[in-house]
Amino acid sequence: MKPKAVIFDAYGTLFDVHSVVLRAGRAITGNLQVLSDLWRRRQLERTWLLSLMERYEDFGRVTEFALRASIKELNLEVSDGQIERLIEAYLSPDSFPDVGPALERLTGAPLAILSNGTPRMIEAAVSHNQLTPFFGELISADQVKTYKPSPRVYALGPATLNIPTADILFVSSNAWDAAGAKAFGYQVCWCNRSGAAADDLGFAPDFTVTGLDRLPNP
Amino acid sequence: MKPKAVIFDAYGTLFDVHSVVLRAGRAITGNLQVLSDLWRRRQLERTWLLSLMERYEDFGRVTEFALRASIKELNLEVSDGQIERLIEAYLSPDSFPDVGPALERLTGAPLAILSNGTPRMIEAAVSHNQLTPFFGELISADQVKTYKPSPRVYALGPATLNIPTADILFVSSNAWDAAGAKAFGYQVCWCNRSGAAADDLGFAPDFTVTGLDRLPNP
Repeated sequence: MKPKAVIFDAYGTLFDVHSVVLRAGRAITGNLQVLSDLWRRRQLERTWLLSLMERYEDFGRVTEFALRASIKELNLEVSDGQIERLIEAYLSPDSFPDVGPALERLTGAPLAILSNGTPRMIEAAVSHNQLTPFFGELISADQVKTYKPSPRVYALGPATLNIPTADILFVSSNAWDAAGAKAFGYQVCWCNRSGAAADDLGFAPDFTVTGLDRLPNP
Repeated sequence: MKPKAVIFDAYGTLFDVHSVVLRAGRAITGNLQVLSDLWRRRQLERTWLLSLMERYEDFGRVTEFALRASIKELNLEVSDGQIERLIEAYLSPDSFPDVGPALERLTGAPLAILSNGTPRMIEAAVSHNQLTPFFGELISADQVKTYKPSPRVYALGPATLNIPTADILFVSSNAWDAAGAKAFGYQVCWCNRSGAAADDLGFAPDFTVTGLDRLPNP
Protein backbone atom coordinates (compact mmCIF):
# COMPACT_ATOMS: atom_id res chain seq x y z
CA MET A 1 0.00 0.00 0.00
CA LYS A 2 1.33 3.44 -0.93
CA PRO A 3 2.46 5.26 2.22
CA LYS A 4 0.67 8.51 3.10
CA ALA A 5 3.73 9.84 4.97
CA VAL A 6 7.40 9.01 5.48
CA ILE A 7 9.11 9.15 8.88
CA PHE A 8 12.89 9.11 9.10
CA ASP A 9 15.14 8.15 11.96
CA ALA A 10 17.80 10.84 12.47
CA TYR A 11 21.18 9.65 13.83
CA GLY A 12 22.79 7.06 11.57
CA THR A 13 20.02 7.45 8.97
CA LEU A 14 19.98 11.13 7.98
CA PHE A 15 23.00 12.24 10.01
CA ASP A 16 26.43 10.66 10.06
CA VAL A 17 27.37 10.43 13.74
CA HIS A 18 30.95 9.63 12.74
CA SER A 19 31.28 13.13 11.26
CA VAL A 20 31.22 14.50 14.82
CA VAL A 21 34.43 12.75 15.80
CA LEU A 22 36.02 13.48 12.43
CA ARG A 23 35.46 17.18 13.06
CA ALA A 24 36.19 17.51 16.76
CA GLY A 25 38.15 14.41 17.80
CA ARG A 26 41.42 14.68 15.90
CA ALA A 27 43.33 16.21 18.80
CA ILE A 28 42.30 13.35 21.11
CA THR A 29 43.10 10.13 19.28
CA GLY A 30 44.55 8.79 16.06
CA ASN A 31 41.92 6.08 15.98
CA LEU A 32 38.79 8.09 15.35
CA GLN A 33 36.70 5.12 14.19
CA VAL A 34 37.29 3.24 17.45
CA LEU A 35 36.24 6.24 19.55
CA SER A 36 33.25 6.94 17.33
CA ASP A 37 32.04 3.31 17.36
CA LEU A 38 32.43 2.95 21.12
CA TRP A 39 30.74 6.30 21.78
CA ARG A 40 27.76 5.27 19.64
CA ARG A 41 27.60 1.83 21.27
CA ARG A 42 27.70 3.18 24.84
CA GLN A 43 25.13 5.83 23.89
CA LEU A 44 22.65 3.25 22.55
CA GLU A 45 23.26 0.82 25.43
CA ARG A 46 22.56 3.61 27.90
CA THR A 47 19.25 4.47 26.20
CA TRP A 48 18.19 0.81 26.24
CA LEU A 49 19.25 0.17 29.84
CA LEU A 50 17.74 3.33 31.31
CA SER A 51 14.51 2.73 29.40
CA LEU A 52 14.26 -0.86 30.67
CA MET A 53 14.96 0.40 34.19
CA GLU A 54 12.08 2.84 33.63
CA ARG A 55 14.44 5.72 34.29
CA TYR A 56 15.10 8.58 31.93
CA GLU A 57 17.77 11.13 31.23
CA ASP A 58 17.61 13.17 28.05
CA PHE A 59 19.62 12.28 24.95
CA GLY A 60 22.02 15.15 25.46
CA ARG A 61 23.02 13.80 28.87
CA VAL A 62 23.11 10.21 27.59
CA THR A 63 25.40 11.32 24.77
CA GLU A 64 27.77 13.14 27.12
CA PHE A 65 27.89 10.25 29.63
CA ALA A 66 28.58 7.81 26.79
CA LEU A 67 31.41 10.00 25.50
CA ARG A 68 33.02 10.25 28.94
CA ALA A 69 32.67 6.49 29.47
CA SER A 70 34.25 5.76 26.08
CA ILE A 71 37.16 8.10 26.70
CA LYS A 72 37.79 6.43 30.07
CA GLU A 73 37.54 2.95 28.57
CA LEU A 74 40.06 3.84 25.85
CA ASN A 75 42.37 5.51 28.37
CA LEU A 76 42.49 8.73 26.38
CA GLU A 77 43.77 11.97 27.87
CA VAL A 78 41.13 14.56 27.18
CA SER A 79 40.53 18.06 28.55
CA ASP A 80 37.11 19.39 29.52
CA GLY A 81 37.36 21.79 26.59
CA GLN A 82 37.87 18.92 24.16
CA ILE A 83 34.83 17.12 25.56
CA GLU A 84 32.79 20.30 25.23
CA ARG A 85 33.85 20.64 21.59
CA LEU A 86 32.75 17.06 20.85
CA ILE A 87 29.39 17.57 22.56
CA GLU A 88 28.97 20.87 20.72
CA ALA A 89 29.83 19.16 17.41
CA TYR A 90 27.13 16.57 18.10
CA LEU A 91 24.62 19.40 17.52
CA SER A 92 25.83 19.79 13.95
CA PRO A 93 26.50 16.35 12.46
CA ASP A 94 26.82 16.19 8.67
CA SER A 95 24.01 14.57 6.75
CA PHE A 96 24.95 11.65 4.50
CA PRO A 97 25.57 12.74 0.87
CA ASP A 98 22.45 10.93 -0.40
CA VAL A 99 20.09 12.72 2.00
CA GLY A 100 19.64 16.10 0.30
CA PRO A 101 19.00 14.70 -3.20
CA ALA A 102 16.66 12.01 -1.78
CA LEU A 103 14.55 14.54 0.11
CA GLU A 104 14.35 16.82 -2.96
CA ARG A 105 12.82 13.91 -4.89
CA LEU A 106 10.31 12.72 -2.25
CA THR A 107 7.49 15.10 -3.11
CA GLY A 108 4.63 12.62 -2.90
CA ALA A 109 3.98 12.63 0.84
CA PRO A 110 4.65 14.63 4.01
CA LEU A 111 8.01 13.89 5.67
CA ALA A 112 8.85 13.80 9.38
CA ILE A 113 11.67 12.80 11.74
CA LEU A 114 11.21 10.58 14.80
CA SER A 115 14.38 10.55 16.89
CA ASN A 116 15.78 9.79 20.32
CA GLY A 117 17.35 13.26 20.24
CA THR A 118 15.92 16.13 22.25
CA PRO A 119 13.92 18.70 20.25
CA ARG A 120 16.92 21.06 20.47
CA MET A 121 19.31 18.41 19.13
CA ILE A 122 17.05 17.41 16.23
CA GLU A 123 16.35 21.02 15.24
CA ALA A 124 20.04 21.89 15.38
CA ALA A 125 21.06 18.93 13.18
CA VAL A 126 18.29 19.61 10.65
CA SER A 127 19.03 23.30 10.52
CA HIS A 128 22.82 22.81 10.22
CA ASN A 129 22.21 20.73 7.08
CA GLN A 130 19.61 23.14 5.62
CA LEU A 131 16.95 20.43 5.73
CA THR A 132 14.31 22.41 7.66
CA PRO A 133 11.96 22.99 4.69
CA PHE A 134 11.58 19.28 4.00
CA PHE A 135 10.05 18.21 7.30
CA GLY A 136 6.57 18.95 8.56
CA GLU A 137 7.23 17.49 11.99
CA LEU A 138 10.31 16.86 14.13
CA ILE A 139 9.22 14.33 16.73
CA SER A 140 11.33 13.63 19.81
CA ALA A 141 11.25 10.59 22.12
CA ASP A 142 11.71 13.16 24.89
CA GLN A 143 7.91 13.71 24.78
CA VAL A 144 7.37 10.26 26.33
CA LYS A 145 10.60 10.10 28.35
CA THR A 146 11.76 6.74 27.04
CA TYR A 147 13.70 5.53 23.99
CA LYS A 148 13.38 3.39 20.90
CA PRO A 149 12.57 0.57 20.38
CA SER A 150 9.80 1.17 22.95
CA PRO A 151 6.38 1.16 21.26
CA ARG A 152 5.62 4.33 23.25
CA VAL A 153 8.13 6.17 21.07
CA TYR A 154 6.92 4.72 17.77
CA ALA A 155 3.34 5.62 18.77
CA LEU A 156 4.31 9.31 18.53
CA GLY A 157 4.43 8.98 14.72
CA PRO A 158 0.79 8.20 13.96
CA ALA A 159 -0.37 10.36 16.88
CA THR A 160 1.52 13.44 15.64
CA LEU A 161 0.75 13.00 11.94
CA ASN A 162 -2.81 11.81 12.54
CA ILE A 163 -2.26 9.04 9.98
CA PRO A 164 -2.69 5.30 10.77
CA THR A 165 0.61 3.52 11.53
CA ALA A 166 0.12 1.05 8.66
CA ASP A 167 -0.06 3.96 6.20
CA ILE A 168 3.31 5.40 7.25
CA LEU A 169 6.69 4.35 5.86
CA PHE A 170 9.38 4.36 8.56
CA VAL A 171 12.96 4.60 7.30
CA SER A 172 15.96 3.74 9.45
CA SER A 173 19.56 2.64 8.94
CA ASN A 174 19.66 1.13 12.42
CA ALA A 175 18.56 -2.50 12.01
CA TRP A 176 17.19 -2.68 15.57
CA ASP A 177 15.19 0.52 14.97
CA ALA A 178 13.75 -0.87 11.73
CA ALA A 179 12.81 -4.03 13.69
CA GLY A 180 11.16 -2.01 16.45
CA ALA A 181 9.17 0.03 13.92
CA LYS A 182 8.07 -3.14 12.12
CA ALA A 183 7.01 -4.76 15.41
CA PHE A 184 4.95 -1.64 16.09
CA GLY A 185 3.16 -1.87 12.73
CA TYR A 186 4.80 0.61 10.34
CA GLN A 187 5.72 -0.10 6.76
CA VAL A 188 9.50 -0.27 7.10
CA CYS A 189 12.48 0.42 4.90
CA TRP A 190 15.94 -0.50 6.21
CA CYS A 191 18.55 1.77 4.63
CA ASN A 192 21.65 -0.42 4.74
CA ARG A 193 24.39 1.82 3.34
CA SER A 194 27.26 -0.16 4.83
CA GLY A 195 26.27 -3.67 3.75
CA ALA A 196 25.76 -4.70 7.38
CA ALA A 197 24.51 -8.21 8.18
CA ALA A 198 20.77 -8.22 8.79
CA ASP A 199 19.54 -8.84 12.33
CA ASP A 200 15.87 -8.10 12.30
CA LEU A 201 15.05 -9.59 15.74
CA GLY A 202 12.29 -11.53 14.02
CA PHE A 203 10.69 -8.44 12.40
CA ALA A 204 12.01 -8.12 8.86
CA PRO A 205 11.69 -4.77 7.05
CA ASP A 206 9.33 -4.61 4.08
CA PHE A 207 12.25 -3.66 1.88
CA THR A 208 15.89 -2.67 2.03
CA VAL A 209 17.73 0.04 0.10
CA THR A 210 21.46 0.77 -0.13
CA GLY A 211 20.93 4.53 0.09
CA LEU A 212 18.08 7.00 0.58
CA ASP A 213 18.32 7.97 -3.11
CA ARG A 214 16.89 4.50 -3.81
CA LEU A 215 13.67 5.19 -1.88
CA PRO A 216 10.60 4.95 -4.15
CA ASN A 217 8.67 8.23 -4.35
CA PRO A 218 5.41 7.66 -2.46
CA MET B 1 21.45 -3.07 57.56
CA LYS B 2 22.36 -6.76 57.62
CA PRO B 3 20.77 -8.53 54.65
CA LYS B 4 18.24 -11.30 55.39
CA ALA B 5 18.99 -13.07 52.07
CA VAL B 6 21.51 -12.92 49.23
CA ILE B 7 20.50 -13.15 45.57
CA PHE B 8 23.13 -13.82 42.93
CA ASP B 9 23.09 -13.11 39.23
CA ALA B 10 24.17 -16.22 37.29
CA TYR B 11 25.98 -15.60 33.98
CA GLY B 12 29.13 -13.57 34.44
CA THR B 13 28.74 -13.58 38.24
CA LEU B 14 28.65 -17.26 39.29
CA PHE B 15 29.31 -18.76 35.85
CA ASP B 16 32.09 -17.88 33.46
CA VAL B 17 30.40 -17.59 30.06
CA HIS B 18 33.83 -17.54 28.41
CA SER B 19 34.37 -21.15 29.57
CA VAL B 20 31.73 -22.22 27.03
CA VAL B 21 33.76 -21.06 24.06
CA LEU B 22 37.00 -22.33 25.60
CA ARG B 23 35.45 -25.80 25.77
CA ALA B 24 33.50 -25.98 22.52
CA GLY B 25 34.85 -23.25 20.26
CA ARG B 26 38.45 -24.29 19.55
CA ALA B 27 37.63 -25.94 16.23
CA ILE B 28 35.91 -22.78 14.97
CA THR B 29 38.32 -19.93 15.57
CA GLY B 30 41.76 -19.13 16.93
CA ASN B 31 40.41 -15.98 18.52
CA LEU B 32 38.15 -17.38 21.20
CA GLN B 33 37.96 -14.14 23.22
CA VAL B 34 36.62 -12.19 20.25
CA LEU B 35 33.89 -14.77 19.57
CA SER B 36 33.03 -15.03 23.26
CA ASP B 37 32.83 -11.26 23.76
CA LEU B 38 30.73 -10.70 20.64
CA TRP B 39 28.38 -13.60 21.51
CA ARG B 40 27.82 -12.15 24.98
CA ARG B 41 27.31 -8.65 23.62
CA ARG B 42 24.79 -9.72 20.97
CA GLN B 43 23.01 -11.89 23.56
CA LEU B 44 22.58 -8.98 25.99
CA GLU B 45 21.61 -6.52 23.25
CA ARG B 46 18.94 -8.94 22.06
CA THR B 47 17.45 -9.26 25.56
CA TRP B 48 17.37 -5.47 25.95
CA LEU B 49 15.91 -4.79 22.51
CA LEU B 50 13.24 -7.47 22.63
CA SER B 51 12.25 -6.39 26.14
CA LEU B 52 11.93 -2.75 25.08
CA MET B 53 9.88 -3.86 22.06
CA GLU B 54 7.66 -5.72 24.55
CA ARG B 55 8.39 -8.96 22.74
CA TYR B 56 9.88 -12.05 24.28
CA GLU B 57 11.80 -15.11 23.24
CA ASP B 58 13.37 -17.32 25.89
CA PHE B 59 17.04 -17.05 26.84
CA GLY B 60 17.90 -20.30 25.08
CA ARG B 61 16.67 -18.91 21.77
CA VAL B 62 18.26 -15.51 22.43
CA THR B 63 21.57 -17.24 23.11
CA GLU B 64 21.42 -19.32 19.92
CA PHE B 65 20.41 -16.32 17.76
CA ALA B 66 23.24 -14.29 19.25
CA LEU B 67 25.74 -17.06 18.54
CA ARG B 68 24.61 -17.37 14.91
CA ALA B 69 24.73 -13.58 14.47
CA SER B 70 28.24 -13.42 15.93
CA ILE B 71 29.52 -16.22 13.72
CA LYS B 72 28.09 -14.48 10.65
CA GLU B 73 29.56 -11.14 11.70
CA LEU B 74 33.02 -12.70 12.16
CA ASN B 75 32.76 -14.58 8.85
CA LEU B 76 33.51 -17.90 10.53
CA GLU B 77 32.84 -21.20 8.80
CA VAL B 78 30.86 -23.29 11.24
CA SER B 79 28.86 -26.50 10.86
CA ASP B 80 25.45 -27.05 12.45
CA GLY B 81 27.10 -29.68 14.67
CA GLN B 82 29.61 -27.15 15.96
CA ILE B 83 26.82 -24.69 16.77
CA GLU B 84 24.93 -27.45 18.58
CA ARG B 85 28.01 -28.23 20.66
CA LEU B 86 28.40 -24.59 21.67
CA ILE B 87 24.72 -24.31 22.63
CA GLU B 88 24.98 -27.58 24.53
CA ALA B 89 28.11 -26.33 26.31
CA TYR B 90 26.18 -23.23 27.40
CA LEU B 91 24.18 -25.54 29.69
CA SER B 92 27.34 -26.42 31.61
CA PRO B 93 29.48 -23.29 32.03
CA ASP B 94 32.22 -23.46 34.65
CA SER B 95 31.74 -21.49 37.83
CA PHE B 96 34.45 -18.98 38.69
CA PRO B 97 37.07 -20.43 41.08
CA ASP B 98 35.99 -18.16 43.96
CA VAL B 99 32.33 -19.27 43.82
CA GLY B 100 32.46 -22.62 45.64
CA PRO B 101 34.56 -21.37 48.60
CA ALA B 102 32.45 -18.20 48.88
CA LEU B 103 29.16 -20.11 49.01
CA GLU B 104 30.58 -22.53 51.62
CA ARG B 105 31.30 -19.53 53.84
CA LEU B 106 27.97 -17.71 53.43
CA THR B 107 26.00 -19.53 56.08
CA GLY B 108 24.26 -16.55 57.63
CA ALA B 109 21.33 -16.13 55.23
CA PRO B 110 19.37 -17.99 52.55
CA LEU B 111 20.88 -17.79 49.06
CA ALA B 112 19.09 -17.61 45.72
CA ILE B 113 19.79 -17.01 42.03
CA LEU B 114 17.88 -14.52 39.85
CA SER B 115 18.83 -14.95 36.21
CA ASN B 116 17.75 -14.22 32.65
CA GLY B 117 18.27 -17.92 31.92
CA THR B 118 15.35 -20.31 31.56
CA PRO B 119 14.72 -22.58 34.58
CA ARG B 120 16.29 -25.46 32.61
CA MET B 121 19.44 -23.43 31.86
CA ILE B 122 19.88 -22.22 35.44
CA GLU B 123 19.32 -25.69 36.91
CA ALA B 124 21.76 -27.26 34.45
CA ALA B 125 24.50 -24.72 35.23
CA VAL B 126 24.01 -25.03 38.99
CA SER B 127 23.92 -28.81 38.88
CA HIS B 128 26.99 -29.05 36.59
CA ASN B 129 28.99 -27.14 39.20
CA GLN B 130 27.60 -29.10 42.20
CA LEU B 131 26.10 -25.93 43.63
CA THR B 132 22.52 -27.21 44.05
CA PRO B 133 22.65 -27.56 47.87
CA PHE B 134 23.54 -23.89 48.36
CA PHE B 135 20.47 -22.32 46.80
CA GLY B 136 16.96 -22.26 48.20
CA GLU B 137 15.48 -20.69 45.07
CA LEU B 138 16.47 -20.53 41.41
CA ILE B 139 14.42 -17.66 39.99
CA SER B 140 14.09 -17.14 36.23
CA ALA B 141 13.11 -14.00 34.32
CA ASP B 142 11.13 -16.39 32.12
CA GLN B 143 8.34 -16.19 34.71
CA VAL B 144 7.58 -12.61 33.68
CA LYS B 145 8.65 -12.90 30.02
CA THR B 146 11.00 -9.96 30.01
CA TYR B 147 14.65 -9.37 30.93
CA LYS B 148 16.85 -7.45 33.32
CA PRO B 149 17.16 -4.57 34.04
CA SER B 150 13.35 -4.42 33.96
CA PRO B 151 11.94 -3.87 37.47
CA ARG B 152 9.47 -6.67 36.70
CA VAL B 153 12.38 -9.13 36.83
CA TYR B 154 13.94 -7.71 40.00
CA ALA B 155 10.49 -7.84 41.65
CA LEU B 156 10.64 -11.64 41.47
CA GLY B 157 13.29 -11.63 44.22
CA PRO B 158 11.28 -10.22 47.14
CA ALA B 159 8.10 -11.90 45.85
CA THR B 160 9.69 -15.36 45.78
CA LEU B 161 11.65 -15.05 49.03
CA ASN B 162 8.89 -13.15 50.81
CA ILE B 163 11.50 -10.73 52.17
CA PRO B 164 11.40 -6.95 51.59
CA THR B 165 13.64 -5.78 48.73
CA ALA B 166 15.64 -3.48 51.00
CA ASP B 167 16.56 -6.48 53.21
CA ILE B 168 18.06 -8.47 50.32
CA LEU B 169 21.64 -8.19 49.08
CA PHE B 170 21.83 -8.52 45.28
CA VAL B 171 25.23 -9.55 43.91
CA SER B 172 26.18 -9.14 40.26
CA SER B 173 29.36 -8.80 38.21
CA ASN B 174 27.44 -7.09 35.42
CA ALA B 175 27.62 -3.36 36.17
CA TRP B 176 24.32 -2.65 34.38
CA ASP B 177 22.62 -5.44 36.38
CA ALA B 178 23.96 -4.02 39.64
CA ALA B 179 22.60 -0.62 38.57
CA GLY B 180 19.20 -2.08 37.71
CA ALA B 181 19.01 -3.87 41.07
CA LYS B 182 20.00 -0.68 42.90
CA ALA B 183 17.40 1.37 41.02
CA PHE B 184 14.83 -1.25 42.09
CA GLY B 185 15.78 -0.92 45.74
CA TYR B 186 18.06 -3.85 46.67
CA GLN B 187 21.21 -3.59 48.72
CA VAL B 188 23.77 -4.13 45.96
CA CYS B 189 27.27 -5.54 45.71
CA TRP B 190 29.11 -5.22 42.41
CA CYS B 191 31.62 -8.05 42.05
CA ASN B 192 34.23 -6.50 39.77
CA ARG B 193 36.72 -9.33 39.17
CA SER B 194 38.20 -7.84 36.03
CA GLY B 195 38.86 -4.30 37.25
CA ALA B 196 36.30 -2.93 34.78
CA ALA B 197 35.56 0.80 34.75
CA ALA B 198 32.43 1.59 36.74
CA ASP B 199 29.35 2.70 34.82
CA ASP B 200 26.52 2.67 37.29
CA LEU B 201 23.98 4.53 35.15
CA GLY B 202 23.47 6.84 38.10
CA PHE B 203 22.76 4.02 40.60
CA ALA B 204 25.98 3.19 42.41
CA PRO B 205 26.30 -0.15 44.24
CA ASP B 206 26.46 -0.08 48.03
CA PHE B 207 29.86 -1.73 47.85
CA THR B 208 32.23 -3.40 45.42
CA VAL B 209 34.32 -6.55 45.86
CA THR B 210 37.05 -7.99 43.64
CA GLY B 211 35.79 -11.57 44.11
CA LEU B 212 32.90 -13.39 45.79
CA ASP B 213 35.29 -14.64 48.49
CA ARG B 214 35.40 -11.02 49.68
CA LEU B 215 31.65 -10.93 50.41
CA PRO B 216 30.93 -10.28 54.10
CA ASN B 217 29.02 -13.10 55.76
CA PRO B 218 25.52 -11.80 56.44
